Amino acid sequence: MSRIVYVNGEFLSEENAKISVFDRGFLFADGIYEVTTILEGRLIENAPHLARLARSAKELNIELPLPIEKIEEAMRLLLEKNNVQEGALYLQVTRGPADRDFAFPKEAKPSLVMFTQKKNLINNKSVVNGISVRSVPDIRWARRDIKTTQLLAASLAKQSALDAGADDAWLVEDGFVTEGSSNNAYIFTKEGVLVTRQLGNEILHGITRSAILKLVKQGNIKLEERPFTLQEAHSAQEAFVSSATTFIWSVVKIDGNIIGSGEPGPVAKKLRRIYIDEVLAR
Amino acid sequence: MSRIVYVNGEFLSEENAKISVFDRGFLFADGIYEVTTILEGRLIENAPHLARLARSAKELNIELPLPIEKIEEAMRLLLEKNNVQEGALYLQVTRGPADRDFAFPKEAKPSLVMFTQKKNLINNKSVVNGISVRSVPDIRWARRDIKTTQLLAASLAKQSALDAGADDAWLVEDGFVTEGSSNNAYIFTKEGVLVTRQLGNEILHGITRSAILKLVKQGNIKLEERPFTLQEAHSAQEAFVSSATTFIWSVVKIDGNIIGSGEPGPVAKKLRRIYIDEVLAR
Repeated sequence: MSRIVYVNGEFLSEENAKISVFDRGFLFADGIYEVTTILEGRLIENAPHLARLARSAKELNIELPLPIEKIEEAMRLLLEKNNVQEGALYLQVTRGPADRDFAFPKEAKPSLVMFTQKKNLINNKSVVNGISVRSVPDIRWARRDIKTTQLLAASLAKQSALDAGADDAWLVEDGFVTEGSSNNAYIFTKEGVLVTRQLGNEILHGITRSAILKLVKQGNIKLEERPFTLQEAHSAQEAFVSSATTFIWSVVKIDGNIIGSGEPGPVAKKLRRIYIDEVLAR
Repeated sequence: MSRIVYVNGEFLSEENAKISVFDRGFLFADGIYEVTTILEGRLIENAPHLARLARSAKELNIELPLPIEKIEEAMRLLLEKNNVQEGALYLQVTRGPADRDFAFPKEAKPSLVMFTQKKNLINNKSVVNGISVRSVPDIRWARRDIKTTQLLAASLAKQSALDAGADDAWLVEDGFVTEGSSNNAYIFTKEGVLVTRQLGNEILHGITRSAILKLVKQGNIKLEERPFTLQEAHSAQEAFVSSATTFIWSVVKIDGNIIGSGEPGPVAKKLRRIYIDEVLAR
């Protein structure tokens, strides 16, 4: 690895990119994050990502270590230094280092860490093949609308799906799908209705979700924002997920049940194409 | 601060005690921990703490970076270097550093971090005064029996109690108390029955809880391991919490309701005394 990593104002080699073991991000998962997509060397939809970061910080009473404009400036500088054309910029803010105590520290200075990841987002095999998902119980905490680093449950879900031969997990609570391990979940029913769970504390308020629903509302697809069951998903024409770095990936198999034709469907493919065209044209 | 901190085999100054920003403990809360009490310069009940650490690691499929005996050796060495007579030794194991991905890394080497904290445990004002607690919804994930660093919800609960003028939080789920923000919860009813929640995924399997229940069973107090409500707690003779570093602290107020006499009661005081005598006599 040879990336330059940002840690609290410094641009460091990966080997030197370290944080205090007393950082509350390490001891308490007392931190928030964002992942901004990079396409053609540019940060995509960065403003809403930073707005969501500010909202997460406010919910947890964490003061951002820099004004949003300065964070954005540092992101651009990091992107330049790493010369990433396609991939992601990961950003994490924590409440900072302090001697360990469940109570918030009075004096901690929040930490800011950022690094880039090169990834094939446009030409990804999951776009062509679609992905298979496995349903697992959603055992996460109750405030999934705050984008915190309490990600162990999501990581366990993803890994259990991989162990079972699937590509990702769909999380199920009280009989309804909440979302994927790190993406929002959708079905397109036989009746031609796009269904995705409504916003609330139960799911992340996806930036890509928001953009896609805007496109859907502009088009002539009927939209229902409501919970859906696995049974509904099994009999749907299409299913898909959205996130910053996948845009849209079709879900072609759920718990071994083939969805629709078993291949990425026209609605997901079209929405993906329009979305990418739209963000690149800005 | 001037402690010596253990990080992956090295004994470092606090300022140099750092971990990679790519450590999954920092990015995913993919880590587990234990807090062992120090009394008279000795580690108290360390064997069950290390057994629980091994159990947590197994549940998450994390391989401990060292055999238990070697971890214990490092703990003793760290204790010696810091010359702590009373306080705690904090130990954290994470899945280690790897480029960020929700899936478990194939090659990561688990991290081990340890530090000490000096604290007054025996002569603590909370022993004399008791503590007040505030009830808050238990919004944590569903596997509280695994002692992970996904502690943000517990930290938020503690802080919200402090903000409301209380000393700690009692977490309530489906109408029943699960536990405190970092301790197990008990009531001693007017009928003379000690009630504490039974073990399960809903609460931490406290080492101190286990020792106390053993003492209770040896004595002549009637014990019921079952969920209890706040209403039951309000009308109890006594209420208290237990943990490695508090041993037992009486709860004298719950949501503003005075419990029993409003002062630490005889059952909690006696159990605390017997427990401390017992661990010191080993």
